[in-house]
Parts: sequence; structure tokens; C-alpha cells
Amino acid sequence: MALIVQKYGGTSVGTPERIQAVADRVIRWVQQGNQVVVVVSAMSGETNRLVGLINAIDPDGSAREKDVILATGEQVTIGLLAMALEKNGQPARSYTGNQARIITDAAHTKARIRNIDDQAIHADLALGRVVVVAGFQGVDSGGNITTLGRGGSDTTGVALAVALRADECQIYTDVDGVYTTDPRVEPKARHIPRLTLEEMLEMASQGSKVLQIRSVEFAYKYDMPIRVLSSFDEVDNAKSTLVTREEEVMEEVMVRGIAFNRDEAQLTIAGVPDQPGVAFRILGPIAEANIEVDMIVQNIGSDGLTDFTFTVNRGDYRRAQKLLQATADAIGAESCEGNTGIAKVSIVGAGMRSHAGVASRMFSALASVGINIHMISTSEIKVSVVVDEKYLELAVRELHAAFGLGDEGGGA
Amino acid sequence: MALIVQKYGGTSVGTPERIQAVADRVIRWVQQGNQVVVVVSAMSGETNRLVGLINAIDPDGSAREKDVILATGEQVTIGLLAMALEKNGQPARSYTGNQARIITDAAHTKARIRNIDDQAIHADLALGRVVVVAGFQGVDSGGNITTLGRGGSDTTGVALAVALRADECQIYTDVDGVYTTDPRVEPKARHIPRLTLEEMLEMASQGSKVLQIRSVEFAYKYDMPIRVLSSFDEVDNAKSTLVTREEEVMEEVMVRGIAFNRDEAQLTIAGVPDQPGVAFRILGPIAEANIEVDMIVQNIGSDGLTDFTFTVNRGDYRRAQKLLQATADAIGAESCEGNTGIAKVSIVGAGMRSHAGVASRMFSALASVGINIHMISTSEIKVSVVVDEKYLELAVRELHAAFGLGDEGGGA
Repeated sequence: MALIVQKYGGTSVGTPERIQAVADRVIRWVQQGNQVVVVVSAMSGETNRLVGLINAIDPDGSAREKDVILATGEQVTIGLLAMALEKNGQPARSYTGNQARIITDAAHTKARIRNIDDQAIHADLALGRVVVVAGFQGVDSGGNITTLGRGGSDTTGVALAVALRADECQIYTDVDGVYTTDPRVEPKARHIPRLTLEEMLEMASQGSKVLQIRSVEFAYKYDMPIRVLSSFDEVDNAKSTLVTREEEVMEEVMVRGIAFNRDEAQLTIAGVPDQPGVAFRILGPIAEANIEVDMIVQNIGSDGLTDFTFTVNRGDYRRAQKLLQATADAIGAESCEGNTGIAKVSIVGAGMRSHAGVASRMFSALASVGINIHMISTSEIKVSVVVDEKYLELAVRELHAAFGLGDEGGGA
Repeated sequence: MALIVQKYGGTSVGTPERIQAVADRVIRWVQQGNQVVVVVSAMSGETNRLVGLINAIDPDGSAREKDVILATGEQVTIGLLAMALEKNGQPARSYTGNQARIITDAAHTKARIRNIDDQAIHADLALGRVVVVAGFQGVDSGGNITTLGRGGSDTTGVALAVALRADECQIYTDVDGVYTTDPRVEPKARHIPRLTLEEMLEMASQGSKVLQIRSVEFAYKYDMPIRVLSSFDEVDNAKSTLVTREEEVMEEVMVRGIAFNRDEAQLTIAGVPDQPGVAFRILGPIAEANIEVDMIVQNIGSDGLTDFTFTVNRGDYRRAQKLLQATADAIGAESCEGNTGIAKVSIVGAGMRSHAGVASRMFSALASVGINIHMISTSEIKVSVVVDEKYLELAVRELHAAFGLGDEGGGA
């Protein structure tokens, strides 16, 4: 008998009919001899409705009160799903974040889970009940309601799986797993049945929006296998992607997939005096303004001057640009330029750390179709480049072919 | 400095604009030097929306899960009102039923309050905060979310006022207090500035739907003054009705007002053997089916036979009628009849206990316009009669005049 934590997103529980379908699916897993804990999001549309009410009062209002309001979305779903299970003869019990004792820090609207008390849930499971837990929410040590931020239900799912020592955390979404790249860009994209958590982390952070990145970090830290499935597939005929620690993956391929991201913008400060501490003087004000920086490249300087380039989310571009101009004036840099017409393309694969030549094969593939590279950054298991946004689709398809990802039988 | 608990119903918080208006009103009370605790209902329409979702899954579903779902309505309102207060510079803090430690019994959907922990709320008040508490909800000793049933927010308000030793509990509604009778039936109805809790109890239970009856019982038990006000009146120019224990009321009038109720139906079982225990044999099955009985009249028997008449809610009439027929067959009664075309009219007044002749003046007034009385029942401070429904308005107006309620300067 396995203990499985299943997480269903807002679309999967978007109507009473779909909630009933989720109940049917959960019961199938129970009938196959499993104990099941279900984590649910708010019904699709509900969070937006609540945000609308909040904005009608005060968009900049108290984060504590926003959490009180937002947490109601998931609370409605747990009650409805527990009722749907019981209607079909399956004993069930709903838990709010507070009732599940999901203790977080006090960072309202983006809290982090500190601890989960597994005793009550284990007791209910032992009684043959399915336990339905509200995703996205917890309480701080003072009993204040907190939320985990966007995608937080995935994190709840994984954290619960860890706390309960579950055998697997299943994330149900509207896709049946991870593909070698986005099939809307490259129709030859192949389904990936298994990949490492590190690869998933890179795929997720690079824009494959299947799993929330913090949940993958959590799973990595605690070695919890995640299975991504579609809640719209037939129960007995479901494709899925199993994401585990590297050592468990059978066959190690060099490049697992191509990720990409159109949401970034690039900023360059040129002719910067090449002195110790200059990177901090440039990025310090950006970080203080809570703007996240993704890629950072500093060219080797000549004449005591250097260029410094980085990327931010497009939504933060204007704010970052103003801050950078102020820094440029203060440190006497030559110029300050930006570009919002870029895209980032990455090749990801745990195998590339033991294979030379992956990056050069990437560059040569892009050169062969005349795509110019603006920035390059590498990690142990990925190589990312920034190109003009208009070349994005071409770059993805070219790389997909160059690393043999469309072929039957695995990557190059 | 007074400590005031204010309760606002669903219509008063029905839109973000109205929530803002409530915030303005609360701030005026604070500026006048009061500490204020606010109890709110769900925004109007919200509870019906949630009931719709519940019914789409399972109308007969688990009461525990229904409470989990229904409690979200008030939780949204407390967050929005706290934000609206803070937006206008007034520190505030929301409390769910659980956070306010409103401990109830475990009777889901109709729980009763056992205890409230006032410490955290008093601490917040001492910090200059307005405390906003979700009405209608609590938790049982096992931490399960409970709701208090229809009108439960009034009860939350009074119970909180008692627990916090408040000076007054203000109930804001869409009317500015209690009238001598419904002004839609008798345009000469007068506003009552002050009445006793006992009178309010009778007025409420007789169909004046201003206050939920349990909240009045609670206020009576703990001697908590209730003030009924309109949330649509100007703050400084508001009429209200203050409801207190009898001893505090200055001028005692014989008849305070005329209450009525069209929601009842009458059932008669005739020719019943007049033996000990027969009332129980007749009403036992009715009570077991959870049908509430209001008036009960048993006529003196002759020839060892008696008639037995009682009233139930019209919604329960058919079920009650079936049960009564079965009883009639079992005990060998002569017949079993019913009438749904009736209405109950009552005169209410704490002064009538020390004045003879009130009932006879009532009967004579009704006789003078040819209204036949089907049933009579009396208590210390009220006399109720059942008449044909078609005479209801005539009866109310006639009694209103007969007891001088329309005159300037008080009742007879």
C-alpha cells in the first residue's frame, strides 16, 4: 500500500462537474489500495474574483488582510471535494492550512513553510479517510493566515508529501507531463517520461510552466519523487513524467530538452571603471528595489573599463532602467542601454556535465541558421543564450533537431 | 470611553462601496472616543452563491464540509473591511471565528457558542485598533469550523459584546429600529425608541424580522443592551431602538406593538380520547421529524373526547399533516383537518402583566370589525390569536388603533 499526495490545480477543480471528476479519480486510486491525500487550488477564476474585490478596496492594502481574503478560495474547494468524495461513498475530511498545522513564516502573500504536523492527517488516513488539504495557505506562529504566493499549491503538495513521508507526489495539471520543448513551437516535441529534479528545476525556471519552481526545490531538498500527470486523461491510460533525483534515472541523456523565455529584457551599462565592488554598486540598487535579475554577464575589460549586462523581467524593465541610469551617472559610466526585444533559449540536461562540446554544438547550430547570440550563460546542466526575440521559434526548432530530441529513442 | 460592538448585515456590506461606507461610520465612532469591535456578515448574495455550489455537489452532504464552505463568506468581508479601515488611516485587524476563539458545540450548521476568549481582542483594542470579527462562525473544541445558522451574525455580535463586557451592542440593519407594527401594513406605525428585551423577544419571535431571536435571548440572559440602527442613515442623525432589561425602561406601556406572522399553518385532530399522555402521542412524532410547533391549544373535552390544535411553519405543513393522519388512525381519533389560510396576530407589551382587560379589549376590537378568532394563546407579555389570513391587515390596523399605538406620545 502506497501513500500518495495528489495536487489538483484550479482548472482541474474549475466547476462542480470537474470536482466530481477529481473525486472519481481519487476513489480509483484508493480502490487500487493506496492512501491518498489531496491538495487543491481555488476553483479557476475564484482567485481573480477575490483580487478584484481587494483592488476595489485598496490594491496596496495590508498583506495580512489580503491573505485572509485569498485563503477562502481554497477553503471552498476542500469542502466541495470532500463532499463529492463522501457522496460517492468515500469517507473524507477537509483541512484548511490552519487545521493541517502548515506553519509558515510571517511573510504574508509569499510565506515559506516551516513545519507541518502530520499526526492528525495520519490518524484520518488510518481510519480509511481521504484527506483533502487547502493548497497555497498556512498560518504563522501567531495564528495569522498566510499564503505562499502564486503556484503555492504545488509547494503545499510537495511539502505535505515530505512531511507525511509519502511515496510519491502527483501534480495534476492540464498537460500530461514535460516535453522536450513546447509543442506549440516545435510540433516534433517529444514527451519525457522521466527526468531529474535538477533538470526539472532548469526546465521550470526557464519557462516550462508545468511546476512551480519552489516546489521542485523542495522536492530536490527532501528527495521526494514528483509525477506530473494530466487531470483530463483517462485514469488507466495516463502518460506522465516522473521527476526524481539523478541517481534514480536509468538512462542519462546529454540534452533533455529545450526551454525558453520571452518575458525578459536586457540592460547594459557600458564603459564602467573596472574596479572591485563595481558589480555590487550596479546590482545593489536593483536588488533593493526587489527586482529579480536572471542572467548576468560581465565582459573582460580593456583600458580599465568594462561592460556589464544583465536581464530582468520585462515588467520590471522601466524601473530597472531608471535605477541603472542613476548608477551610470553616479559612477561615470559611458552609456546605459536596454533591449526588450529579446528571448532566452536554453538547452538542459544532466548528462552535459560529463560531455564536452555541448555548448559549441549549440552555438554552431544557431550560427548555421544565421542567429546572432547576445549573451551566454552556463551552469552545470544547462547553457542559455539570449537572441533577438524574432528568432526564438527558429532557434528552438534548430536546437531540438541538433540534439536529436525529435527522434524516437531519446536525446543525443 | 465606551466599548461598542457593532454588527453589520449582508446588505450593509454588499459592495466594496458599502464596505467603505461602513468603514467611514466605524471611524466616526472611534473619533468620538469609543473602542469599536465590528462583526460582519457575508456580502449579500455570497451565501447564496456558496449554497449553489454545495447543492451542485450534494444538497444532503456533510454538515461539517458545508460549514467549511459557508464560513468563507464572512472571512472575505472581514479582510475587506479591515483593509478599508486601514486605507482611511484607522489601524484594524480581522479575526475569523477560529482566531477570535469563538468556541461552539459541534452541532454543524446550527452550532451554539460556548465560550469566547477576549484577551487577544482586548489587547488589539488597547493598541488603538478596530477589531473586525467574522460573524456566523466559530470552531468546536476539535478545531472544526462551525456555523451558527441563519441570523447567526447577530448572535456573534451579542455574544462578543457579553464576552468583552461591552457597553452596548449595536445591530445595523436596513431599518432604523423597531416599529409598533410593520409600516407596510399600517402606515401609522410609530418608531419605538426603547423597549424591553422581553418585548423584543416576543416581537422577534412573532415575525418582526429585525433581530435574530437567539441573539435577543443571549442579550436577555447576560443583560446586554442592544441598539438597532440603520446603516443607511446619517451617522449623526440616526434614529434607533434601544433594547434593555425591563427595569431600565423608563415608561412602561401596556401594549408596545403588534406583531404578526403569515408563515404558519394550523392542524386540528378532533375527537381524540381524552387520556393522560395523548398530547405526547400527538406531538411526539412531529417533534421527532424536527418540525417546530408554535401555538398549541387543547379544548376541554366532553364525552371523554377532546380536540387538539396546533400550528407549524407552512413549509412543514404537508409532512406534519401526514404524521398527524397516521397518529389519528393509530389512536382512533374522529378526524384530522388542516388550514394553511391563516395568520397569527399578537399584541406585545411588558405592561400588560399588571393590567387586566388587555385580552378582552383585543377580542372586542376584532369582533367590532367582524373578524372570527380560530385560536388564542397567551403569555405574560403577549396575546396571540389566529385569524383567517385575509383579515390580517384589517386586524393589525384595528388593534394598532385600539391600543392607541398610532397616537403621538406612546401606547395606551
